[in-house]
Amino acid sequence: MTYEPQRALADIRIRVQRELVDFLGLQTHYLGEIGSELVPVAEAMNGFLLDGGKRLRPLFAYCGYLAAGGKEDDAIIKAVASLELLQACALIHDDLMDGSDTRRNKPSMHRHFESIHSDEDLSGSATSYGSAAAILLGDLALVWSDQMFHTSGISSEVLVRSLGIHDEMRIELMAGQFLDIHEQALAASSVARSLKIARYKSGKYTIERPLHFGASLALSDSHQRSLFTDIFSEFGLPLGEAFQLRDDLLGVFGDPSVTGKPAGDDLREGKRTVLMAMTNDRADENQEAVIAKYFGDPNLESNGIAALQTIISETGAAQHVEDLIEKLTLTALDSLNRDEIEPNAHALLNELASIAIRRSV
Amino acid sequence: MTYEPQRALADIRIRVQRELVDFLGLQTHYLGEIGSELVPVAEAMNGFLLDGGKRLRPLFAYCGYLAAGGKEDDAIIKAVASLELLQACALIHDDLMDGSDTRRNKPSMHRHFESIHSDEDLSGSATSYGSAAAILLGDLALVWSDQMFHTSGISSEVLVRSLGIHDEMRIELMAGQFLDIHEQALAASSVARSLKIARYKSGKYTIERPLHFGASLALSDSHQRSLFTDIFSEFGLPLGEAFQLRDDLLGVFGDPSVTGKPAGDDLREGKRTVLMAMTNDRADENQEAVIAKYFGDPNLESNGIAALQTIISETGAAQHVEDLIEKLTLTALDSLNRDEIEPNAHALLNELASIAIRRSV
Repeated sequence: MTYEPQRALADIRIRVQRELVDFLGLQTHYLGEIGSELVPVAEAMNGFLLDGGKRLRPLFAYCGYLAAGGKEDDAIIKAVASLELLQACALIHDDLMDGSDTRRNKPSMHRHFESIHSDEDLSGSATSYGSAAAILLGDLALVWSDQMFHTSGISSEVLVRSLGIHDEMRIELMAGQFLDIHEQALAASSVARSLKIARYKSGKYTIERPLHFGASLALSDSHQRSLFTDIFSEFGLPLGEAFQLRDDLLGVFGDPSVTGKPAGDDLREGKRTVLMAMTNDRADENQEAVIAKYFGDPNLESNGIAALQTIISETGAAQHVEDLIEKLTLTALDSLNRDEIEPNAHALLNELASIAIRRSV
Repeated sequence: MTYEPQRALADIRIRVQRELVDFLGLQTHYLGEIGSELVPVAEAMNGFLLDGGKRLRPLFAYCGYLAAGGKEDDAIIKAVASLELLQACALIHDDLMDGSDTRRNKPSMHRHFESIHSDEDLSGSATSYGSAAAILLGDLALVWSDQMFHTSGISSEVLVRSLGIHDEMRIELMAGQFLDIHEQALAASSVARSLKIARYKSGKYTIERPLHFGASLALSDSHQRSLFTDIFSEFGLPLGEAFQLRDDLLGVFGDPSVTGKPAGDDLREGKRTVLMAMTNDRADENQEAVIAKYFGDPNLESNGIAALQTIISETGAAQHVEDLIEKLTLTALDSLNRDEIEPNAHALLNELASIAIRRSV
């Protein structure tokens, strides 16, 4: 029977989902025991986490684990599923920092708790209540992610040797997030800085580090681990950049029904992406004036979005980013042609790469 | 030579400080390598963490460790020092949620980054920049606390068996914080609910759980561990409540030069403490009217603060809270009269208890 990587990925995704459902079920019960006021917290996290997402980070981690020679193991599935809770923390806090109203076609977490405040006619400011709830929910997701990893059932030896890479991944994520908000606050954009942010905030954290985490879960031998760490960096770093560049394009040209975000959301937010930095580098005076007028206007409507989209296309920035994605992806896929990666794992990583940089979300 | 618990505590505090300095030194270097934009992040964390604080949580954890039979060990000092980074996360996020301008007589973290935004003439909203930086700094402190614990140098066996209690402590903290913001949003106060919040948000997290953490670091035998867990709950739960009640009193009557917060800060914030719930229960109609007028007014000045202080005293609520602190403290100290606690450890916990519930901070 030929190996079917798509089916294999779908199967891993289902197992990840099952672990998340089980874990959140227990946590919901636990919070309810502390106080009934906490039930909305648990429900909000359930809704946020179980309702969508491609599970890219668990998939990369598990495929990294398999590619490094790991055997199918439900404890490892639970360990990598915990990365979804880390991602929940990042998204909940990110939406709050960006002032985003929507996530996956539903209200973002701070907006959700703002509504609860209004619906229940609570006292004080609904906005402050929403923000505070989102801060705490993000913190809770971060701690839960730790707990899910620690209680996954992997052996002490595997757990202890994987804590280091796990911590480093999370520190890089926070550092990348800070570079991002700092970049938004600078007067001028820069392609070089935007690329670095994309690398830390998204590329390393979404692809390279989960793969390293997988290698660490699989391999007790430090030489083997270091070999696979190198292979996965060669594969994961360019692919991670391609992933982030695709995200840039989707933030400008993406279909809201697919992205789960309003059309042109990045333009309204004035997000300093690599795509925008390249557009700025190429824009003539007239185009610069249009960008200055519309980019970052919180009330931007469809005509302004269309005007910016046109400029991003006409300057050639969009095509340049498409070309870059293709080049980076080829570099990434090339790196997998090695004897150390057995054919099924190769097919799996190949398929996963194409999901990560796919045109629709 | 007689055992001097005060000197012993001072010595532990110095060793905790040294570990924090070393750890933050390494992290500062690490962040600087990622990007010079991150240097202010590292500097802010250094300023926040190294400049004050009683180190209560590391002290309780280490004294718990010693009381449970643990031997002096610098790796354990580093492990318990990590609790200060967890506390930094809680305080940074708490100040942001409460809108507090000051912490330890200095600007709170979001205000600090607001100033950086203004001083460097960055673009966009200084308030949003300050909030985003505080969210990320808190997240980073949470992850650093994990990393400091994981790299403390304790053995794998000790590390793995202590992860559970460490995770539980952090989940309780976040749950307690949420109960707190929810309580602030309710129309009516309740002594019972305020006591529960005090227990989760502060009592368990500051005293009982650090002691349990210490017991877990000290004891490999699960029966012994469970014995000391019970003893420490008997000691830590009432003491933790007393600690929080003292905090309530200091938030109303405390000297700003000692608390590091403006006078009457809790009154201005409209903080729903046990003290205020008891005051409300005892207030007559006239007093209720004064409370309704002043309590929670963000622009409250000294005359309003004085009026509220008078009511809190005249209703007898302040004295009742003082009595409760004394009763809870006696209950806590009584629980230490057991053969399992050797005399020096007894003296140490005794001294630490008196620091925790001391009238000045």
